Amino acid sequence: MERNLIAETVDKVDEEVRLLGWVNTIRDHGKITFIDLRDRSGMVQCVGTNLEHVSPESVVEIIGTVSGRPENLVNSKIKTGSIEIQIKSLKVLSKAAELPFDMGTEDLNLDLPTLLDYRALTLRHKKQQAIFKVQAEIINAFRQALLKRDFVEFQAPSIISSVPEGGAEVFKVKYFDHEAYLSQSPQLYKSLLVGIFERVFSVNQIFRAEPSVTTRHLTEATSLDVEFGFIESWTDVLEMEEYVIRYIFSEVEKNCREELDLFNATLPKISDNIPTLKLKEAQEIIFQRTGRDVRQEKDLAPEDEREMCKWSLEEKGSDLVFISHFATKKKPFYVLPDPEDPTYAFSVDLLGRGVEWSSGGQRLNDYETILKHLDEWGLKQKDVELYLQSFKYGVPPLGGFALGAERMTMHILGLKNVREASLFPRDMERIDLRLSR
Amino acid sequence: MERNLIAETVDKVDEEVRLLGWVNTIRDHGKITFIDLRDRSGMVQCVGTNLEHVSPESVVEIIGTVSGRPENLVNSKIKTGSIEIQIKSLKVLSKAAELPFDMGTEDLNLDLPTLLDYRALTLRHKKQQAIFKVQAEIINAFRQALLKRDFVEFQAPSIISSVPEGGAEVFKVKYFDHEAYLSQSPQLYKSLLVGIFERVFSVNQIFRAEPSVTTRHLTEATSLDVEFGFIESWTDVLEMEEYVIRYIFSEVEKNCREELDLFNATLPKISDNIPTLKLKEAQEIIFQRTGRDVRQEKDLAPEDEREMCKWSLEEKGSDLVFISHFATKKKPFYVLPDPEDPTYAFSVDLLGRGVEWSSGGQRLNDYETILKHLDEWGLKQKDVELYLQSFKYGVPPLGGFALGAERMTMHILGLKNVREASLFPRDMERIDLRLSR
Repeated sequence: MERNLIAETVDKVDEEVRLLGWVNTIRDHGKITFIDLRDRSGMVQCVGTNLEHVSPESVVEIIGTVSGRPENLVNSKIKTGSIEIQIKSLKVLSKAAELPFDMGTEDLNLDLPTLLDYRALTLRHKKQQAIFKVQAEIINAFRQALLKRDFVEFQAPSIISSVPEGGAEVFKVKYFDHEAYLSQSPQLYKSLLVGIFERVFSVNQIFRAEPSVTTRHLTEATSLDVEFGFIESWTDVLEMEEYVIRYIFSEVEKNCREELDLFNATLPKISDNIPTLKLKEAQEIIFQRTGRDVRQEKDLAPEDEREMCKWSLEEKGSDLVFISHFATKKKPFYVLPDPEDPTYAFSVDLLGRGVEWSSGGQRLNDYETILKHLDEWGLKQKDVELYLQSFKYGVPPLGGFALGAERMTMHILGLKNVREASLFPRDMERIDLRLSR
Repeated sequence: MERNLIAETVDKVDEEVRLLGWVNTIRDHGKITFIDLRDRSGMVQCVGTNLEHVSPESVVEIIGTVSGRPENLVNSKIKTGSIEIQIKSLKVLSKAAELPFDMGTEDLNLDLPTLLDYRALTLRHKKQQAIFKVQAEIINAFRQALLKRDFVEFQAPSIISSVPEGGAEVFKVKYFDHEAYLSQSPQLYKSLLVGIFERVFSVNQIFRAEPSVTTRHLTEATSLDVEFGFIESWTDVLEMEEYVIRYIFSEVEKNCREELDLFNATLPKISDNIPTLKLKEAQEIIFQRTGRDVRQEKDLAPEDEREMCKWSLEEKGSDLVFISHFATKKKPFYVLPDPEDPTYAFSVDLLGRGVEWSSGGQRLNDYETILKHLDEWGLKQKDVELYLQSFKYGVPPLGGFALGAERMTMHILGLKNVREASLFPRDMERIDLRLSR
């Protein structure tokens, strides 16, 4: 007999079905037993008499008949709430050990270390699963948005031979007789590829040896990287980013309704356009609104980012806001200074719901200027040799941005810690399990 | 004036267009100059008089009028062969230095080290570009095939805390005060995720500290990983793999016609089904066909793989062939032994055009048996703790496979060295550029 998915059962009233899945919860009422069975398509209530004991999370095969429930017993919260399965036979395919905590509740109610210590188990909870279905949708939508605009996907390398911008937060790899490093960003690769494909994107792992444990940093994260050439202005980068973000939101909205509802999540609001402010303008607004004078600062502090998001939502009806024109010297060597005032650059951060979602901007494309910047930034040509090779032979004006997949997931669903948005989060103290045990 | 893509020009005869791209080739005939201009959409011939000198590969803006060519001058080899652009103005946006070799030929004719030493430049050649357009299509088709079958995409981690199967070919990472490693395969992660999502896939970087330089090994490669549960037999894995392969071939055939033609490449032939032979049967065939007696060997040597592919093509009309039932003890601890003869396992390699394309099979899912195998293989439970956690709490019968993206690209296009199928190949001697300079 072929397997039936749980989601199909609603259309099979009075038919016999063969279900395969996990025992989500089990309730014994004397002779009668209720089992909520879970498979990849959903959950359904099964009912049987004189069943032998089966432990929660065990993998079972249930053969039974689909029967309609009386109207007063219909559960409108789940898709299969109008039916139940009358169990004819139940077979255990893989028996689960006794659970360390109750997995059958609406919320898991575990502290973060426990949630992660039991990652292979806690991910089975439907709210945990939902996080990664939303993440998969974000990433898939990101790719689809860019494929529609003629971008070519590339695979960014992780092992790199040099760290042009200093090595404090970079992981070292023993590479045969050499020292190598793990890439903090595919920036130089995506830029040089503009010389080849014009428009490229990548979904790749990035690595940061962040020596502190915060709610928003991981040592390994998934970066959604975009770079494209023949831009006429730095604002072309903002337009492309806004297009990609809107595309992602609309796909998540369309395909993840159930997952969003589990978290009472609503997608960030965007007005007609994402508002764009220069750093200086943002600093002036912060001064006006809070009295805090940050007008001489070179960057926004976390509380400034929160304040600007509040401003954007209150004044512009947008959960997202672009901040541009950060101090050139505070940015990497490849930023393009604004010719009107070269102390500020065409660099742009996207803030959303109080935090930074992405950074990007227009980059240098003139070979001589790149060499000059390398020198001014105190960097060596030989550390960026392949990148330089591209620009030596002609690259158009270009720009791009990078979005963090975990951060987007976190802020769409309103999670408190970025670790919740990483299947297998890594930080200073943990690779899957705690390192110091 | 808006930019026009080169591909659009054929529909704009007698209209003015603004083109942005690279000077692919330039031919001076006294006063008249012919420029083949290249952008992401294709190539077109532009013609002008009294132009100032422009170097090949420079990025230019050309404004001109599209004119139809007389019939005897139509070039049927390229899509824009029926027209040319009469240049009104030419502006250099980014000047290329003098090229180290001619980039304007049909083939690049460079040895592999030179091809790679100038990677940022040589990738601009249309045949080099084509390789990575085919690769992007393979990867995209892989994902689409699996999304259609309810698989969830996950992001596999690269940094791992232990190497259960010994560390000879693993890269070490200095991870704060700990030692960590780069993942050779997401096998344990994808298996444990079957306990959560039933069906998962991943496109991820894998790392092998291969201490030799061969034509088919890279130290960093892109792995296309699949794993799924509730299989009824090990042959379910073969069926899924065949489905995925066919899907990829058909998408590449459909969307990469031009790229395939550049390499005179035809997709591998598959008969009604990919033939499947046990290792022992394959060894018998090799003995019959060649007289070489490999019937006591535990694995196929490279020449055996070539012979079996010859056999498959000659006898079954298939460029691909599955070989199953390798010796259990030669395989990793998680293989499922065939109950009919447990010295052989439900492990399966896919061979194509003379070499291994993938390996896979059915895995252990019974917790007690996994513990027993770990012991017999001499491995420590604590090195696979998260994986064990999943199976302790119930996982259905499962299996899967992994395909190498570079190898598939190489063998579809008939490339001689896998490095040609990696944008930025890494081996013992090279990370982008040669290490020992």
